[in-house]
Amino acid sequence: MSTPPLDELARRAREAGRVLARTPTAAKDEVLLLAASLLEDRVGELLSANGRDLDRAGDAGGAQLDRLRLTEARVVSMAGGLRQVAAQPDPVGQVVEGWVRPNGLRIHRVRVPLGVIGIIYENRPNVTSDAAGLCLKAGNAIMLRGSSGAIDSNRAVVACVRDALAKVGLPVDAVVLVEDTSHATAVKFMQLEGAIDCLIPRGGPALLDSVRRHATVPTVIDGDGNCHVYVDAAADLDMALAIVVNAKTQRPGVCNAAESLLVHRSVAADFLPRAQLALEGVELLGDPATCALLPGIGAATAEDFATEFLDLKLSVAVVGDIGEAIDHIARYGSGHSEAIVTADLAAAERFAAEVDAAAVLVNASTRFVDGGEFGFGAEIGISTQKLHARGPMGLRELTCVKQVIHGEGQVR
Amino acid sequence: MSTPPLDELARRAREAGRVLARTPTAAKDEVLLLAASLLEDRVGELLSANGRDLDRAGDAGGAQLDRLRLTEARVVSMAGGLRQVAAQPDPVGQVVEGWVRPNGLRIHRVRVPLGVIGIIYENRPNVTSDAAGLCLKAGNAIMLRGSSGAIDSNRAVVACVRDALAKVGLPVDAVVLVEDTSHATAVKFMQLEGAIDCLIPRGGPALLDSVRRHATVPTVIDGDGNCHVYVDAAADLDMALAIVVNAKTQRPGVCNAAESLLVHRSVAADFLPRAQLALEGVELLGDPATCALLPGIGAATAEDFATEFLDLKLSVAVVGDIGEAIDHIARYGSGHSEAIVTADLAAAERFAAEVDAAAVLVNASTRFVDGGEFGFGAEIGISTQKLHARGPMGLRELTCVKQVIHGEGQVR
Repeated sequence: MSTPPLDELARRAREAGRVLARTPTAAKDEVLLLAASLLEDRVGELLSANGRDLDRAGDAGGAQLDRLRLTEARVVSMAGGLRQVAAQPDPVGQVVEGWVRPNGLRIHRVRVPLGVIGIIYENRPNVTSDAAGLCLKAGNAIMLRGSSGAIDSNRAVVACVRDALAKVGLPVDAVVLVEDTSHATAVKFMQLEGAIDCLIPRGGPALLDSVRRHATVPTVIDGDGNCHVYVDAAADLDMALAIVVNAKTQRPGVCNAAESLLVHRSVAADFLPRAQLALEGVELLGDPATCALLPGIGAATAEDFATEFLDLKLSVAVVGDIGEAIDHIARYGSGHSEAIVTADLAAAERFAAEVDAAAVLVNASTRFVDGGEFGFGAEIGISTQKLHARGPMGLRELTCVKQVIHGEGQVR
Repeated sequence: MSTPPLDELARRAREAGRVLARTPTAAKDEVLLLAASLLEDRVGELLSANGRDLDRAGDAGGAQLDRLRLTEARVVSMAGGLRQVAAQPDPVGQVVEGWVRPNGLRIHRVRVPLGVIGIIYENRPNVTSDAAGLCLKAGNAIMLRGSSGAIDSNRAVVACVRDALAKVGLPVDAVVLVEDTSHATAVKFMQLEGAIDCLIPRGGPALLDSVRRHATVPTVIDGDGNCHVYVDAAADLDMALAIVVNAKTQRPGVCNAAESLLVHRSVAADFLPRAQLALEGVELLGDPATCALLPGIGAATAEDFATEFLDLKLSVAVVGDIGEAIDHIARYGSGHSEAIVTADLAAAERFAAEVDAAAVLVNASTRFVDGGEFGFGAEIGISTQKLHARGPMGLRELTCVKQVIHGEGQVR
């Protein structure tokens, strides 16, 4: 199928975005609810389109196939995601703040859509509907550049949303799928200056590196999560055990899973053997002090401490005090989510103040750093950069502010 | 003079930034007040350093020399700027919002410094003290990469701030001047990933283009201002005249000066001849309808309408209605500051809603879009991008948020 060139797609998305920006909440919600119903009505078509993608994937690895695979339950969950986004309050038009200057000028900061959001992502068809739903609700157009491996699934999902837009009388090009999945077009996509207001890459290190090197449009990086759990001298060790097990094993392949365990020297001999038992099935790699307490485990290299395993694997170190734990995290952490388990108020406050990350957790699992768990309905990613957004990104992170200034003829 | 390599400067700034991040407001304010006094005490040294820069500049253009030149009054004004920043409330530690999740987790979003700010700028020594003051107050370290043309002035200004840091017992490398002003080092500066948390370029189109092409660190673009004043059918024409004259002539070389005048057809014959008289000394370039009303002025090309003159020059067009004015701005505007003069509520509301710019003004001059005029004490730039910051950037725009999450052992 021949599709328009990228510039033309971008032009159409921008025009559609101008309409979306002034579309009332009720109409946007109607699109999301209709799209949700269409996804469910067309589950057969979606699964057969997804089957074609799976056939082409053939002998790819299990985790990759799992991310690509749609099932009836997953389609129902995608529809549910759209309904949850529809139920969220509309951020557009919110007056963030306002004040009056001594000369009588009244300044309001009003939340407005960003315009056109670009998403570049790998084989996950559910990202297609999640991202489209969030962007539309926040009044933006969206250009989706998925992977060639998921192209049939993405076409089928995008068709549902575009059909919903058409039924509500809104421009279908508010949701545009870039069907040319060549590398050259991906680079061109990252350089659509003046056309894309915000580019969000979702994928592995190679994609993020390519975006850092090539992108000339503003970006928000959804980076990796080398997350730590630090068990303090004053920790409730039962609580610590439950948190470590949950953070490591509840879903090891995601960015907010723990990759590294730090244990205060004074509780290490008591805690580590219990942790080893509770983490059965998890490969442990320890520093010398850990290896001395847990004979038989492998030795952790500096590279291991710097690695996001995304697997049932955990690096472990014993630290002399909380300062050493904070330094270790400053050296190896990726600024995603860092947890301390402690009953000591001063330790909790110091950890929260000094650890530089999107999220710092006291006595809770790192797995809670997530748009859904934060109450955002859904998320378009978890920012590990500091500009614009940090941590889980929901509807509000897909907007910016406009300053509206009212006077009665003031001049300087 | 030999200075450490860029990587080493960046390492020192990052270490200093970690200290600044937990420095109490009183100590940061003390640094700013001391630095202000040192600037005044050393005015002789500053002027002689500046004299060396001016000598080297030799036969450069007048506007460029004017930006580079320091006078006693300008040094006093730089010191005053530091005192104003010291008087501003400290954004660090502010709890932006907080809520409790159904599972009992308490989430706070707390304002924290960005870390290390990089500034790359042209021949303006006052930017050196303004930027250093704002960054320090917001708890950040700053790396200043000024131009070779202002290197002696910048060294003298930076010495005042570093001496003030030392006197208060804070690390002097919280303010670092990159003395190697080669292009290669500038590019390396834009690619200090993991070292610079936010890069803010301040300069002309060539610098901004270079940053867009080369930067791999997060950036906030302080772009150009092709600002319009639209005189509506329902405008008070006396007010319109005062606003146009102020927006164009009060300081034509700055980004929030007006570059283009749009006039509703129904008032053009009345307004334009009066505007021509009031704008004596300003070169007008008109569309055909304007030229018919103002014989003798030059014809404006599409390129003129797209140009930020930064000079006593104004493009003028007659529009059929407010929709045409909004379309003209969407086509030619740079998203900086756009003004409407009108007594019609519906026109004011439509203009404010539909014009996509950092600031939209109703019955006020575009010249008010400025950190000082907004009440921010000073500004580090005016963002024309939508991510992170939009419009005048003060202390708050030099911070980000950290999510601090408290639980009692919650797991998923």
